[in-house]
Amino acid sequence: MGIGAGIKTIEFMNNKIRIIDQRKLPDRLQYIDLSTKKQVCDAIKTLAVRGAPAIGVCAAYGLYISICKKSYKDRKIFFKQLNKNAKLMISSRPTAVNLSWAVKRLMQKAIDNKQSGIADIKKILFAEAEKIHKQDQDMCIRMGKFGAKLIRHRDSILTHCNAGALATSGIGTALAPMYIAKSEAKKIKVYADETRPLLQGARITAWELKKAGIDVTLICDNMAASLMHSKKINKIMVGADRIAANGDFANKIGTYSLAVLAKVHNIPFYVVAPTSTFDFNLKTGSQIPIEQRDPDEVRKIKTVYTADKNVNVYNPAFDVTPHYLVTAFVTDKGIFRKPNRRSLKSLKS
Amino acid sequence: MGIGAGIKTIEFMNNKIRIIDQRKLPDRLQYIDLSTKKQVCDAIKTLAVRGAPAIGVCAAYGLYISICKKSYKDRKIFFKQLNKNAKLMISSRPTAVNLSWAVKRLMQKAIDNKQSGIADIKKILFAEAEKIHKQDQDMCIRMGKFGAKLIRHRDSILTHCNAGALATSGIGTALAPMYIAKSEAKKIKVYADETRPLLQGARITAWELKKAGIDVTLICDNMAASLMHSKKINKIMVGADRIAANGDFANKIGTYSLAVLAKVHNIPFYVVAPTSTFDFNLKTGSQIPIEQRDPDEVRKIKTVYTADKNVNVYNPAFDVTPHYLVTAFVTDKGIFRKPNRRSLKSLKS
Repeated sequence: MGIGAGIKTIEFMNNKIRIIDQRKLPDRLQYIDLSTKKQVCDAIKTLAVRGAPAIGVCAAYGLYISICKKSYKDRKIFFKQLNKNAKLMISSRPTAVNLSWAVKRLMQKAIDNKQSGIADIKKILFAEAEKIHKQDQDMCIRMGKFGAKLIRHRDSILTHCNAGALATSGIGTALAPMYIAKSEAKKIKVYADETRPLLQGARITAWELKKAGIDVTLICDNMAASLMHSKKINKIMVGADRIAANGDFANKIGTYSLAVLAKVHNIPFYVVAPTSTFDFNLKTGSQIPIEQRDPDEVRKIKTVYTADKNVNVYNPAFDVTPHYLVTAFVTDKGIFRKPNRRSLKSLKS
Repeated sequence: MGIGAGIKTIEFMNNKIRIIDQRKLPDRLQYIDLSTKKQVCDAIKTLAVRGAPAIGVCAAYGLYISICKKSYKDRKIFFKQLNKNAKLMISSRPTAVNLSWAVKRLMQKAIDNKQSGIADIKKILFAEAEKIHKQDQDMCIRMGKFGAKLIRHRDSILTHCNAGALATSGIGTALAPMYIAKSEAKKIKVYADETRPLLQGARITAWELKKAGIDVTLICDNMAASLMHSKKINKIMVGADRIAANGDFANKIGTYSLAVLAKVHNIPFYVVAPTSTFDFNLKTGSQIPIEQRDPDEVRKIKTVYTADKNVNVYNPAFDVTPHYLVTAFVTDKGIFRKPNRRSLKSLKS
């Protein structure tokens, strides 16, 4: 058995993207094939595929799929369509930067090769999507190895949402160090926040860690502070959806809360993310767009209403954590302690 | 229309306790009648009736019900049975002190009148239960009036779990000041934490506040910190299940988290509770017993599983917040700022 849970979150085959339908977990491990741009956008919007790196990979293949079958009269029409599809893809979700990062990488490749034939440009786009996919897997391993250095035998680690294999096309971001630590025979205990409203922790993280043979305990989000107070947690590791140049970062709603509580309880707070999640165009976290989602996500759980159907709801999908609450960023290029604008500059490629 | 939501959480009629079955809210406003000690204990255990003051009132009537119909050969047998029933009643839930406080008050009355005839003792017990009921309602109004002094026009208040009419036999503890403030024509906005796992905030508080015409917005527990950070909350008011002599107090899991976050964000954190919730037998909060509940409460929501059926779970019903995080206790005897052992002493009756 390899490292991690042995999960293939995203595969590309026969001009289709095969993804695990994460809306069905943990009840069913069901795969769905995406073969049109609409299917790809819908899968991203409805969180059938989620996690910043995973939606980056999915969108890259998605852009290729959106133009691969049709024939175009000329390059002008081809590029017009490609541009339109790229915008559509990017608009599916606003916060995770990997989505636009991946799509823009493909667009740049197309522009760099705009003198080539349309068939060749299509091939180049596919090759770039494959490269992003492969790089994502490699970055997971590298983050895992760097992060595992921070994990000691018998550590008790809290994580939030899902930053695992199911958030990437590899072994994950925040969970990657745990998988590597396990392969090094370190015994660890993980607490997984259930992560309301969409319960990625309960549905996905707990399932994924258990499948990988890691000792996992599920808690409600509001229990984390009490565990910290009773010294049952000695490390926190989370992922990120977008990191500004100064180290402020957006991640699943509830992350800011954990970062503040970690500081108060003197617990190291690590953010594990690949370089593709850094957005050096944004100076601070206040510039990160935060997606507001359907109030019904809070009013109900799965298909069951838990509150009045008309009650007012506030439902931001993410929050922003200031850099000074981050003990270190664990990236594919190394560990960055006490992050700030200057120390993170070297990550800018 | 009177003050509050016009809800009768507990009534006594025809030798039965009529309660709102809170497990059914907000889908149905359904009343159930409790006429045996088993029914009373089950209603408390399964949270058909909940909230420290409400279970105190319910247990007082419950103890009376447990002996009212049967005839006893002599006083010795009567007292033996009464003692047994009292212990049973107290054991239904461990954390809220109002339960044992109410039962012990009735037991003391019985002992004080042990020379009377059994029929008279029964009458005395009933009168004491009615007195507790009436006092609970009066204490709610008094807490409400004291607490309303802390509320200003256009305040935005966060609350957790349900400390409203449905947690008492009156207008509530933490929600009482909001109801009084409304009757004084102060316009307020309330954020209600949904309060996993049993969703008392989503199911009960949001429903109750809406019914009373108060502007309420439902959030997931993990969103509170982000609201504090963006200055959308300027006051926090919660109830309590047991308060130790030094002011450390137990309340619904997640309360400690809010208290820490309030301190960091410089937001006043008020605990509204009647004198019956203070337990001067306990020096500090570390002595408060914390109920661990069924893991399935976390694994599922209502009837729907949200996680693997066998995943490990940690499910404490309460946490303990140290007194130094409390801005003030609002009680029926006044407001106690910067609470500590000495300042709270005057509450000891």
